[in-house]
Amino acid sequence: MNVFYATDIIKDKITLRDQEAQHCARVLRKGRGAEVFVIDGKGSRYRCEIDEIKRQTVELSVLSYQRFDPNPGMPHIAFGIMKNMTRLEILLEKITEIGVSEISPIICTRSERTALNMERLEKILISAIKQSLNFYLPVFHRPRTLEDFISAQSGSKRFIASFGPGVPELSSIQGRHENPVMLIGPEGDFTENELSLAIDADFKRVNLGSTRLRAETAAIVACTLLRY
Amino acid sequence: MNVFYATDIIKDKITLRDQEAQHCARVLRKGRGAEVFVIDGKGSRYRCEIDEIKRQTVELSVLSYQRFDPNPGMPHIAFGIMKNMTRLEILLEKITEIGVSEISPIICTRSERTALNMERLEKILISAIKQSLNFYLPVFHRPRTLEDFISAQSGSKRFIASFGPGVPELSSIQGRHENPVMLIGPEGDFTENELSLAIDADFKRVNLGSTRLRAETAAIVACTLLRY
Repeated sequence: MNVFYATDIIKDKITLRDQEAQHCARVLRKGRGAEVFVIDGKGSRYRCEIDEIKRQTVELSVLSYQRFDPNPGMPHIAFGIMKNMTRLEILLEKITEIGVSEISPIICTRSERTALNMERLEKILISAIKQSLNFYLPVFHRPRTLEDFISAQSGSKRFIASFGPGVPELSSIQGRHENPVMLIGPEGDFTENELSLAIDADFKRVNLGSTRLRAETAAIVACTLLRY
Repeated sequence: MNVFYATDIIKDKITLRDQEAQHCARVLRKGRGAEVFVIDGKGSRYRCEIDEIKRQTVELSVLSYQRFDPNPGMPHIAFGIMKNMTRLEILLEKITEIGVSEISPIICTRSERTALNMERLEKILISAIKQSLNFYLPVFHRPRTLEDFISAQSGSKRFIASFGPGVPELSSIQGRHENPVMLIGPEGDFTENELSLAIDADFKRVNLGSTRLRAETAAIVACTLLRY
């Protein structure tokens, strides 16, 4: 059965809007009485019936409802914002499919971009959770500086991707699956200053193997190693 | 120093052609006497000096030469050809960065495409090995049927991505790093027939976790788990 995303849920009435309404009514040509699933990105899935197709919205009634627990130990992935939006979108889609609790785009010294179209990018996350049958939409933070990001962290498992002699491989770290925060540099990597800042804030240096990965590949590989 | 790819290597003379020559002469505007690195995708790296910039080629002399061993245990990734070329290109780029010995696009029952522009796609592989500082270009097989692929396999570690009760997670398999062959289904997955065919040929079913991954994401995740 088709799955849609909605946040406009009041008692047993749900309204699909924007691309979700379009997709339901125009692309899939669902009509009154058809049954669909709706997820709210917060752990609930609703089995619904279509009441009415309006010009801009689709109105639904809830038939039944199921609650799902979040997957335990999901990582928080933070990454230096890259210039190439296609690569940033690949990063977001893939880590959301693989499983992530929070996503933090970071404005680094070597980031050539500091602003993001959050609304457009959130659609990628919504599409990815529907695709992957996740019931939780990751918390998607607005771009912030490395200092602001670091000062907002409270968890104890903190990693920063970094090459260097004696730096252990992420895949060898015990306890890496316990709600870790993983920080990945932008194209051109962190500056020495930024690396020191993170290390001073108890971020542990880990490497992602012997090959040099693009920034978005590093994030996907790190997310995989933190999930499995 | 900049790295270029060439196969046209005769004694101590190397010729850069096509996009490699363009990139060297037109984009980076290298001139006679400049030093560059050249890799051949077969484990050699040459330090060279530019002899001459011609209209279509760049002629080089080898100054010195270094040989690199292949990374041991690299996986062979086989995947059902998907319709969306962008996703197929992402798959190729990412697994090549992460590290793979052979790549096999497979014509499955549910593949909506059976032919690939191999020359165009090989450029993605070349770009990815240069990016990731790999010295070996993966063997990139032409599309073939599942039957043909299976009958060509001789290694003992064979896996097929598959959901189902009792199917172990790939990340829990001991010995998974020993030159494994990993088979990933197309969009819509393998048919029952195809799955049986693979199982009969000693492919062991493994799953890639609880979330439903897109075909290209599954290949990237599997490649990561086989490399780390």
